[in-house]
Amino acid sequence: MNTAAAFADFRRYPLIFALTAARPLADRVQVTWADGRTSPFHHQWLRDNCPCPQCVYSVTREQVLEIIDVPEDLAPAATRLDDEGCLCVDWQDGHQSRFDPGWLRAHAYDDQSRAERLVNKPKSQLWRRDLQLPVFDYRTLMDDADALLQWLLAVRDIGLTQVRGVPTEPGSLKLIAQRISFIRESNFGVLFNVQSKADADSNAYTAFNLPLHSDLPTRELQPGLQFLHCLVNDAEGGESIFVDGFAIAEALRQEDPEAFAALCEIPVEFRNKDRHSDYRCLAPIIALDALGQVAEIRMANFLRGPFDTSVEQMPRLYRAYRRFIALTREAQFRLVQRLEPGQLWCFDNRRTLHARNAFDPATGARHFQGCYVDRDELLSRILVLQR
Amino acid sequence: MNTAAAFADFRRYPLIFALTAARPLADRVQVTWADGRTSPFHHQWLRDNCPCPQCVYSVTREQVLEIIDVPEDLAPAATRLDDEGCLCVDWQDGHQSRFDPGWLRAHAYDDQSRAERLVNKPKSQLWRRDLQLPVFDYRTLMDDADALLQWLLAVRDIGLTQVRGVPTEPGSLKLIAQRISFIRESNFGVLFNVQSKADADSNAYTAFNLPLHSDLPTRELQPGLQFLHCLVNDAEGGESIFVDGFAIAEALRQEDPEAFAALCEIPVEFRNKDRHSDYRCLAPIIALDALGQVAEIRMANFLRGPFDTSVEQMPRLYRAYRRFIALTREAQFRLVQRLEPGQLWCFDNRRTLHARNAFDPATGARHFQGCYVDRDELLSRILVLQR
Repeated sequence: MNTAAAFADFRRYPLIFALTAARPLADRVQVTWADGRTSPFHHQWLRDNCPCPQCVYSVTREQVLEIIDVPEDLAPAATRLDDEGCLCVDWQDGHQSRFDPGWLRAHAYDDQSRAERLVNKPKSQLWRRDLQLPVFDYRTLMDDADALLQWLLAVRDIGLTQVRGVPTEPGSLKLIAQRISFIRESNFGVLFNVQSKADADSNAYTAFNLPLHSDLPTRELQPGLQFLHCLVNDAEGGESIFVDGFAIAEALRQEDPEAFAALCEIPVEFRNKDRHSDYRCLAPIIALDALGQVAEIRMANFLRGPFDTSVEQMPRLYRAYRRFIALTREAQFRLVQRLEPGQLWCFDNRRTLHARNAFDPATGARHFQGCYVDRDELLSRILVLQR
Repeated sequence: MNTAAAFADFRRYPLIFALTAARPLADRVQVTWADGRTSPFHHQWLRDNCPCPQCVYSVTREQVLEIIDVPEDLAPAATRLDDEGCLCVDWQDGHQSRFDPGWLRAHAYDDQSRAERLVNKPKSQLWRRDLQLPVFDYRTLMDDADALLQWLLAVRDIGLTQVRGVPTEPGSLKLIAQRISFIRESNFGVLFNVQSKADADSNAYTAFNLPLHSDLPTRELQPGLQFLHCLVNDAEGGESIFVDGFAIAEALRQEDPEAFAALCEIPVEFRNKDRHSDYRCLAPIIALDALGQVAEIRMANFLRGPFDTSVEQMPRLYRAYRRFIALTREAQFRLVQRLEPGQLWCFDNRRTLHARNAFDPATGARHFQGCYVDRDELLSRILVLQR
């Protein structure tokens, strides 16, 4: 058995409990494990997941078999456990499949196994103003894969990190972002320069204060991670402010479930337009996942279009929107910190709202660079580092 | 009144019906139009959408006012229609707002106005094998903004187009994709080369047949548009096959609503992994929009992970999945065409599934290049061209 090809995967699946029995039933094989758990596997599922080189191309580790090419009622002629503890199935049409017990346990879909996987999923750690800010060192992140993994886990689970010791040459940001993956381009470029400009095409490029927001809520998929790198910061003001949008959404859910529901249900349009582009996205401010957990915040008052909901819903939406903004202004949620040259913020743009106090360009120069990396890239890099 | 600043927008809002009356009510102003329609506008909504230069920064056309900074019960001291037909509101706190009637009608949220906007939204045109393929000429698209708009509307509404007369130098694809916007990068590069490779990291880079699929279903946001450009095609076989995934989903909904529901409800994991990346995305095969219309298809059998649903749901999922694949194999849905050098496909990757027949690398060279552009960019370019 070629184990590498057999998994169609780069993960390892250690043996946790051995298989002790395999019992054929009408539409499934029911296996029993050394800890007493029983797991049913339907015939279609087993045939579909056959890891043999005829069914999975070993170079790409991608499936070649399409399940529709075997009969819907295909059943085993025989099932047994072999000397290495694998589940072997001889199919009625002569095909043979062999399943590693570590892999099989990791993919078992009895209720208990599924519940176990759910419990083991990474969880967001909510925070308020007293967050112990996770701080990392640039040089270490560039050299050390373990440190890199710790940083990326903090970004994933806490959603706000700071990196220090970053070179202050323009473009340096690229090198550290690319420790994760390629940069997500936008109409503002691959890297964007946050400076006060006379012909600003975004309020970000003025000296105004910016209220708490996510970047590019005008796109179907808001950028996953945002980097903000300080090159020069001689101007008075311009402190960075962060809040955990998930913590605020949960606080709203507690104190005013009706307002929370309105922000989950009523879509709002965000717009970003200039001479060359016109982006619009209609989506609720709070998105929930399949389990009802807060999964995403979409918010930027300065990019919002006129509310468009029914006459009955309009007062409900305004009440909820006002309450949400009021919460973002409460000191208990707000982490305020001035970024110094050579420091950068890396945060979850779909969770951690960011703001900037107004600054006074007459008092000195201020130059930040920013870029985006998508959440797919973060999660992929974490999985590769964890192999 | 500075009209440009007043709209916070680059669109024009022609006057369709004049305002004939404005009646103040307890929490709203109710206006009447020349066609007899009445539209209520809540006080909060009107104040929030004040277009004056204090509320909207005229350079960026972005809102500066945050509605929470005015009292929740702020009401007008007076409302009137002025000589130019605008709605003028004098607020109790002294602020004044003035609303253009064209803009106001375009944003009215009475039931009738909202229903009208819904009806006028672009609709997908479903197709089968007898589609009159929309074909465009490369040179014309590069030179002529009207032709460009017609092409992009066909991509948006039909989801499959062909462009001819494209130079066959590697990289030429970039120029036409950039007529829309920047290219969306992936782990396969900015442009990807579809050629048979010994060390393939995807079945796409073999000579195998590829069943009907969307590209990168392993990412949270599947790429919106896919380009496939033929540089060389001397090998036998390798014909392109397309089906309208929306038409197939609708056919499934008609013939087997239970199977359709299973594919809308039960999430499936797609995986794409190699030595350097490990992408996973869990989502249903058919996604619906808020109105229950089919909005997206996510499908690639060769990138699918083992189904992970409850023991009760597993047979239901297999039955639905088999039926969906069976429909994609029906000749009535399949448009089959060999791409010749200098031609390219541009299609909606989230709707139009594509496949390739196996080809024989021994009979000649075959070299395609591909790239992605996101739907946000397509829709933005269309809006700008329509201004």
